[in-house]
Amino acid sequence: MDTQLRAKEYFDERATKEMRQHFRPVQRSVQESLSYTCRILAATGQEAGLAGQISARSERPGAYWTLRFGLGFDEATPDDFIEVDSDLNTLTGEGMANPATRFHLWVYDARPDVNAIVHAHSPWVSALVAARQPLVVAQMDMTPFYNDCAFLADWPGVPIADQEGVLISEALGGKRSIILAHHGYLTVGDCVEEATYLSVYLERAVRMQMRARVYGDLTPVPGHLAQEAHDYLLKPSIVKGTFDYWCRQVDRDAPLASENTQQSARA
Amino acid sequence: MDTQLRAKEYFDERATKEMRQHFRPVQRSVQESLSYTCRILAATGQEAGLAGQISARSERPGAYWTLRFGLGFDEATPDDFIEVDSDLNTLTGEGMANPATRFHLWVYDARPDVNAIVHAHSPWVSALVAARQPLVVAQMDMTPFYNDCAFLADWPGVPIADQEGVLISEALGGKRSIILAHHGYLTVGDCVEEATYLSVYLERAVRMQMRARVYGDLTPVPGHLAQEAHDYLLKPSIVKGTFDYWCRQVDRDAPLASENTQQSARA
Amino acid sequence: MDTQLRAKEYFDERATKEMRQHFRPVQRSVQESLSYTCRILAATGQEAGLAGQISARSERPGAYWTLRFGLGFDEATPDDFIEVDSDLNTLTGEGMANPATRFHLWVYDARPDVNAIVHAHSPWVSALVAARQPLVVAQMDMTPFYNDCAFLADWPGVPIADQEGVLISEALGGKRSIILAHHGYLTVGDCVEEATYLSVYLERAVRMQMRARVYGDLTPVPGHLAQEAHDYLLKPSIVKGTFDYWCRQVDRDAPLASENTQQSARA
Amino acid sequence: MDTQLRAKEYFDERATKEMRQHFRPVQRSVQESLSYTCRILAATGQEAGLAGQISARSERPGAYWTLRFGLGFDEATPDDFIEVDSDLNTLTGEGMANPATRFHLWVYDARPDVNAIVHAHSPWVSALVAARQPLVVAQMDMTPFYNDCAFLADWPGVPIADQEGVLISEALGGKRSIILAHHGYLTVGDCVEEATYLSVYLERAVRMQMRARVYGDLTPVPGHLAQEAHDYLLKPSIVKGTFDYWCRQVDRDAPLASENTQQSARA
Repeated sequence: MDTQLRAKEYFDERATKEMRQHFRPVQRSVQESLSYTCRILAATGQEAGLAGQISARSERPGAYWTLRFGLGFDEATPDDFIEVDSDLNTLTGEGMANPATRFHLWVYDARPDVNAIVHAHSPWVSALVAARQPLVVAQMDMTPFYNDCAFLADWPGVPIADQEGVLISEALGGKRSIILAHHGYLTVGDCVEEATYLSVYLERAVRMQMRARVYGDLTPVPGHLAQEAHDYLLKPSIVKGTFDYWCRQVDRDAPLASENTQQSARA
Repeated sequence: MDTQLRAKEYFDERATKEMRQHFRPVQRSVQESLSYTCRILAATGQEAGLAGQISARSERPGAYWTLRFGLGFDEATPDDFIEVDSDLNTLTGEGMANPATRFHLWVYDARPDVNAIVHAHSPWVSALVAARQPLVVAQMDMTPFYNDCAFLADWPGVPIADQEGVLISEALGGKRSIILAHHGYLTVGDCVEEATYLSVYLERAVRMQMRARVYGDLTPVPGHLAQEAHDYLLKPSIVKGTFDYWCRQVDRDAPLASENTQQSARA
Repeated sequence: MDTQLRAKEYFDERATKEMRQHFRPVQRSVQESLSYTCRILAATGQEAGLAGQISARSERPGAYWTLRFGLGFDEATPDDFIEVDSDLNTLTGEGMANPATRFHLWVYDARPDVNAIVHAHSPWVSALVAARQPLVVAQMDMTPFYNDCAFLADWPGVPIADQEGVLISEALGGKRSIILAHHGYLTVGDCVEEATYLSVYLERAVRMQMRARVYGDLTPVPGHLAQEAHDYLLKPSIVKGTFDYWCRQVDRDAPLASENTQQSARA
Repeated sequence: MDTQLRAKEYFDERATKEMRQHFRPVQRSVQESLSYTCRILAATGQEAGLAGQISARSERPGAYWTLRFGLGFDEATPDDFIEVDSDLNTLTGEGMANPATRFHLWVYDARPDVNAIVHAHSPWVSALVAARQPLVVAQMDMTPFYNDCAFLADWPGVPIADQEGVLISEALGGKRSIILAHHGYLTVGDCVEEATYLSVYLERAVRMQMRARVYGDLTPVPGHLAQEAHDYLLKPSIVKGTFDYWCRQVDRDAPLASENTQQSARA
């Protein structure tokens, strides 16, 4: 090809424009999005017993929506989400929140830009935190975590009290994800889709890292390329397009059993 | 959040109270519970050929209920459980017990607090015992085994005789679980639900530990936090709530084919 | 328990007698058994493309039955087996044998006690042979290979010629299994059930061994206990009872689509 | 067996002739073949979000067919493939190409013998490239990559620009596959079947290699045997016979939902 090579910026702008034009994200209520998130985590092997925690900021100040305690990710429907206030009292719906979601309150308070939180003890992250290791960004699909994944080396115990909220929200700082030693992970986003996207990519990233470790310490990807890929892979069109794809998988393999749910249309 | 931080005890008591109020455990016969246990183990990959052994103490002194030998975990129904006496003669039902369940007799005799036993050679525990390694509690979900998981470093051979009963029950002591080198594991509980819960968590714990080992020896979690989490995660509400959740998964994915079985209602 | 401890021989004889009494093995034609074997291997993850090879000695001297080349394990039915002569010419049925089954001829010739052969490049054995490592018997379920699993350290290339037959049959000697470096494995038996049982157990054994290797070299189980467990786990009642169980799984999950096939009855 | 041993060439020629006679490859349109490829990759665990890229050269100069961006491998149907020109403008069908398929243009331009490309970040290859390791051919099923798998040690960043096309096509050279450090892999072929076959075998090869690494560095298979097996395993009859088998699996487990699709007949 004797085409003259064009600058990368040209392609980045063109991709952004074309994706905006061709991708029409599906609209969902927050309870629908949260249900899909639960099912997506279940489908990607993030088995969690009753421990997994997913929430989204409510329009009511200080309140958030979360899965009624006692249900697993694979059985969540939009009707199973309850709204709780800033001391975890139930405002809407029946049942109680998982007491261990208390620290979400602190994250929402400290981070006005955050509208959704995913916390889980997924299989691979659980192994990484048992080894008390931070993430090392060594492959393109890990770059959404470049300079965007904190590490909390201390474990404060079962996170049902206020203290964990202070500790975790401070350690997270302004980042979108955090590895919690001896515990699990947290991903946050400006919308449910972003927190979910990061959750699925984080578990995969850690799987890669731990398998690669058989060759010794990893070499991180160069910083400027990692930053560029980070920004590219977090473009809203890609985040929402990927989330919509995973929702179609849920609709096909394990549809939400709720009258409130609209089936995702294929974009 | 400028809320004054409250003591952890406050939250622990509140969680306990609220869970008691919101969780209504499903009632099942012992044969039903045992069937669900078999199915749960099958669903979590504890493939066992005919070797897996699950039992529950009978009301008749010295006797227990166990799966008829020749069936796999994934096909167990309540009708497939037989009652055997203290020399493994069949009292109720047809067929025979797995001769390798003989050591259960000794555990029931030595431990009046134990009403159920799960023994299996699950994939990850089998690998750990091939390496003759004890468990190291290095992550929150491993804490149900903190100071509660014995290790038997010697293997007495196929456990079909009396001698294994002596050896295993002595090594177990007053604990709720044991890793048997070159062999497998045992979890016990005051009810079928507890033994099952520990069984599923043990296999996951070992998976975590072995994957984390690629980074070298693990750092255990601090003892007082491990003890606190151990007690929290073994609260009856959490144990039974989790078991009920897994039963709902069985009902959906591989229902027990028996007229004796009541479908689990969603709590 | 103040029962006087009885000798292990007592229990071994009792188990043997009781199993003979309670287990009634299902009768199948050789083609049915071979089909089930294919399905069992597929169900246990021994994906093989077209490379997997399963055969059973025919009543005709020098001839054997094998899966028609071009089919995968997961689609085999009794009608898909062909009989080939001692130069791989098709005698019964349509199609051809996998040219790489040629070495089976040499094994049948050298070992009159062998009536069935399973050869595959299963995922875990493939990894072990890429590392050119022999099996180490370090857990009870690995004991069917104690002093009964040879190791061929040299790879003669694609096994489509006579030379491989000489090399492999000599390396196998009088044993029931062999690990072929850079290649795969072979299990043989006096019946299809035994070769299959060994095949499934071998893949699991190797998975255990390789996962355990993260802790360094393994300690083998003591020889006399390994021999005792080897003999116990290869009792015909256990071998056939386990095979029948796996056939019931096939019948439930992926039934053989053939008019010739009788469904396995639950024993 | 006292048969005189015949030369390996005899068997190789005989196998080639007999396979040609017995295997009748199914004919498919390029869009059908590409759909099957997507489904095969999904079925073999090459989960890819929206990132996976599969293409086939069009009859129009400089153009190729590829999956419409926004769809996952598991939902592809023949109707979802679009034809794009040498600057990725859509010629046939609706939607856009994945901007990251740009480097395919350079490969098709540099390699007139190549008619299909598979690029993915499959789980095991992703781990290998996170460790920046080349492939080591240490087992028979890895030999299709002997002297036929390049290694690009540098990652140029998200491959949406012209520069990546230059770099990747130069590193590939005349080979059929390439490992891209920090990134993923590429397999190419003279037809869709060949590129797909190599894709599935490459992911398996890397899985083997990484699992085997627990024993330290691998010993490659001897070169002349590797070359012989490479040529044998890439015989068109085996490649197409294997592809047809995988298509039958797709037809059974997750059939293409399109009126344009003919079901694969069992050969």
